[in-house]
Amino acid sequence: MRPPLNLVIVGSVAFDTIETQASRRDRIPGGSGTYASMAASFFTRPGLVSIAGQDFPRSILALLRSRNIDLAGLKIKRGKTLAWHGLYASDPNQRTTLKTELNVWQDFRPVIPASYRRADIIFLSNLDPDSHDYILSQMKGIKLVAMDTIRYWIETKPEALFQAIQKVDILFANEEEARLLSSEFNLVRAGRQLQSSGPEVIIVKKGEHGAMVFGRNFVFSVVANPCENVVDPTGAGDAFAGAFLGYLASRGEFNRREIKKAAVYGNLVASLAIEDFGLDGLLRASQLDLIQRYKNFKKIISF
Amino acid sequence: MRPPLNLVIVGSVAFDTIETQASRRDRIPGGSGTYASMAASFFTRPGLVSIAGQDFPRSILALLRSRNIDLAGLKIKRGKTLAWHGLYASDPNQRTTLKTELNVWQDFRPVIPASYRRADIIFLSNLDPDSHDYILSQMKGIKLVAMDTIRYWIETKPEALFQAIQKVDILFANEEEARLLSSEFNLVRAGRQLQSSGPEVIIVKKGEHGAMVFGRNFVFSVVANPCENVVDPTGAGDAFAGAFLGYLASRGEFNRREIKKAAVYGNLVASLAIEDFGLDGLLRASQLDLIQRYKNFKKIISF
Repeated sequence: MRPPLNLVIVGSVAFDTIETQASRRDRIPGGSGTYASMAASFFTRPGLVSIAGQDFPRSILALLRSRNIDLAGLKIKRGKTLAWHGLYASDPNQRTTLKTELNVWQDFRPVIPASYRRADIIFLSNLDPDSHDYILSQMKGIKLVAMDTIRYWIETKPEALFQAIQKVDILFANEEEARLLSSEFNLVRAGRQLQSSGPEVIIVKKGEHGAMVFGRNFVFSVVANPCENVVDPTGAGDAFAGAFLGYLASRGEFNRREIKKAAVYGNLVASLAIEDFGLDGLLRASQLDLIQRYKNFKKIISF
Repeated sequence: MRPPLNLVIVGSVAFDTIETQASRRDRIPGGSGTYASMAASFFTRPGLVSIAGQDFPRSILALLRSRNIDLAGLKIKRGKTLAWHGLYASDPNQRTTLKTELNVWQDFRPVIPASYRRADIIFLSNLDPDSHDYILSQMKGIKLVAMDTIRYWIETKPEALFQAIQKVDILFANEEEARLLSSEFNLVRAGRQLQSSGPEVIIVKKGEHGAMVFGRNFVFSVVANPCENVVDPTGAGDAFAGAFLGYLASRGEFNRREIKKAAVYGNLVASLAIEDFGLDGLLRASQLDLIQRYKNFKKIISF
């Protein structure tokens, strides 16, 4: 018998059109839920809660299932899948959204399948903050609630967002979001300020500069895995969060030691994701590749 | 008897007027040579080669001597000391030079005192690249030549600068300089490209994000010491380089292990420097404070 599913990921499934300075891809599979699930699947069997249109390829769904991702929570609805079009500057941390078509994502009301409801960990990825309560009310005995957000919700629903943040245990934010949410430029201050707003753990994702973790009575800082060839940064943050939570789900303990290691794995899986377009970087990598990367990373940072 | 002087630092002594978003200081002692020497003095007795005007306070010179900095190479000349005026944005990595008065620095031709000439290590800090040969020709049996540069020389004397870079063992560059010098945005590529232009070791200083070291057959990456209260970033890069080289001078070995530790100490001494205006952060700190910071840093990055 399979072990019970222990990580629920609620996030988008999408078609991404991606323009970098070097190349372009049209309508490739993406979405925060997809990236996070793929990343988590290095460590655990995550359950994805999302929605796609009838235009989303069955072959990709089969691929996700083959990576041990549970899709009982993925609804296929008549209509078109969420579509996003982004452009990266030569600084890959700078991206512009050229177009977002919400399509079936527009009025998605996430329903958690019965088989997911006793999971310990749930990840609410870039969702409308007003939807959090409804989602969490469906869970039974949840131990750890994590969320990520995007600039859009910070600007359009700041009050609902802060109420949502109060109720989570782990908040992921990139540098820009951490600064916007805290009104502090200095990231250490930003992290501490966000901690005081509720979550026990704040994770500031700094892209090519790594990540900082503000935990109960500790700070942890880790560099990114040096990457010479950043092909497509899309989904790096989602991959970080997915790997982080996937690792924690596989360990079953949420102490300082495991949280630090989770951040290291978040970093490393994100570094796999950016080395190719879309999901290809993650799809190509095996668990052995990740172990090799971990060993190599240890060398790069040891002194 | 004192051990022979083993680190020569050629760099400026200046008055700095510093404006940050929070405060301002007028004509406080600074200069790349001063910061680097102060930082190096945590580890070794550095010899400073520089020039100041008659307006530079004797009390500051006495303070530098009391920190075990040799000033036989500091010339006091009739006239005014180099004066710099800078403004920091809320992002402390963004600074604008409002004014530079070169004064006695203008036609300074560095003469190495006889007592410095058998040192193993020399640091050429932000100098006119055309002056390097003349300075190096005065040294006897130098083992390690390190240099730092500034945007000004990259833009005004690129050819002389690249010839100078070819002849050094260690090149320090901040992110912007590394990108300008290599024409590569990605810092890993920039580091490798610069290595191929001559120096065995490239050190990319990333301010609040730490530093990367590209050595012979290794890459080392280290986060910055998390700093909640960045008061004045002036001299942080000079302090990094001074501490790095001061540590190496105290060890006498230039292998991978020592280079990595040197970068960690560079980081930590720089973090001391930015916690107060001008030299005050470095002046206030003792060697015990640095050891404490090292221990604490180990905790912050361990997993």
